[in-house]
Amino acid sequence: MTVQESTIRRGMFITLEGIEGAGKSSAIPILAAFCEARGFAVIRTREPGGGLLGEALRSIFLNPELTLDAQAELLLLYAGRRDHWLNRIQPALAEGKIVLCDRYEDSTYAYQSGGRGFPRERIAELARWAGITQAPDLTFWFDLSPELGAARIRARKADRLEQEHTAFFTRARTVFAERQAAEPERILRIDAAVPIDEVHVALLEALAPRLQRHYA
Amino acid sequence: MTVQESTIRRGMFITLEGIEGAGKSSAIPILAAFCEARGFAVIRTREPGGGLLGEALRSIFLNPELTLDAQAELLLLYAGRRDHWLNRIQPALAEGKIVLCDRYEDSTYAYQSGGRGFPRERIAELARWAGITQAPDLTFWFDLSPELGAARIRARKADRLEQEHTAFFTRARTVFAERQAAEPERILRIDAAVPIDEVHVALLEALAPRLQRHYA
Repeated sequence: MTVQESTIRRGMFITLEGIEGAGKSSAIPILAAFCEARGFAVIRTREPGGGLLGEALRSIFLNPELTLDAQAELLLLYAGRRDHWLNRIQPALAEGKIVLCDRYEDSTYAYQSGGRGFPRERIAELARWAGITQAPDLTFWFDLSPELGAARIRARKADRLEQEHTAFFTRARTVFAERQAAEPERILRIDAAVPIDEVHVALLEALAPRLQRHYA
Repeated sequence: MTVQESTIRRGMFITLEGIEGAGKSSAIPILAAFCEARGFAVIRTREPGGGLLGEALRSIFLNPELTLDAQAELLLLYAGRRDHWLNRIQPALAEGKIVLCDRYEDSTYAYQSGGRGFPRERIAELARWAGITQAPDLTFWFDLSPELGAARIRARKADRLEQEHTAFFTRARTVFAERQAAEPERILRIDAAVPIDEVHVALLEALAPRLQRHYA
């Protein structure tokens, strides 16, 4: 059974994207509460992670001792994503739920292709092999400068991704911007440089009409 | 850097293949001792496993709680194999060592394509994506009937692979046989149904001239 065959989508698949320090994680509870207050069932998840396999892999990804080359990392990433999609996201969507996912496919392109320079066509090839062909319904791209992102995370424990340098995040940001320009209906740019309260207001203002339209 | 570019092969890459209960694992110390007695440096390794990533993944593969579909399993397998090849096998070969590896590429075809019916062309596609293109110098295929294999492992703790049924192993054996027929120079069939002492003698008799030829 392929991913496509198994997909009867009724729920709404929403992803949050952006470089480190953009405030995605703190926004998820607010988005969830907003949706739940409107009577929707919500699941919160993340990548890498989500699902049993993903969480087992997450510790591998964030382990600074383990140096993986881009290809090995992508193979793991898509193993986890396939399991996550098949066993968690897709079933929740089939039940009409809203899935809020912290990072997904756009991050892979931003980090691996933008950040690390791995050819994007080869990522697309692997995504097709893995059956990851269904785009989110809505993506919030939390956009801010790498410098501001770095300042925000300075207090937090650095993991491997966060040790990467500003140039890396600048390239990642460029890829997010390119993808937003290519799919402006799906990807909404959220200015994440403003105070966090304003970010949250902007998110909810953008979400409300999208929810209404999706479940109309 | 691709796998091919990084490869300066001087050592000898030997893999051991066969269905469960064929006696591969117990043969490795004997093959290693035989090579070492002739002055060769030997590393012993295995798949899934070998390398830091592989060992982390091995516990995932053998966990009966985690049901992965064939594609997710293959993505993990090739992530581990790539890391294993790049960081362990290839460097050892470059130093002229003998690498003894318990299972490798042939097992993937036997189990995933033969056993589970996943299309072999799609496995080959993923192997190419992952840069796994270098065949072993020599493969010992430990051949015996699934019934005899099952009888031998009955006393041992069953892991997920060993819980698969006889029909599965019969299909796996067929794929091993096909691959042996296609590459008779690389893959030597070892009759693993005979008493273990005879298996070991046959292995060493087959290995001696191959070693001599390889390092001539």
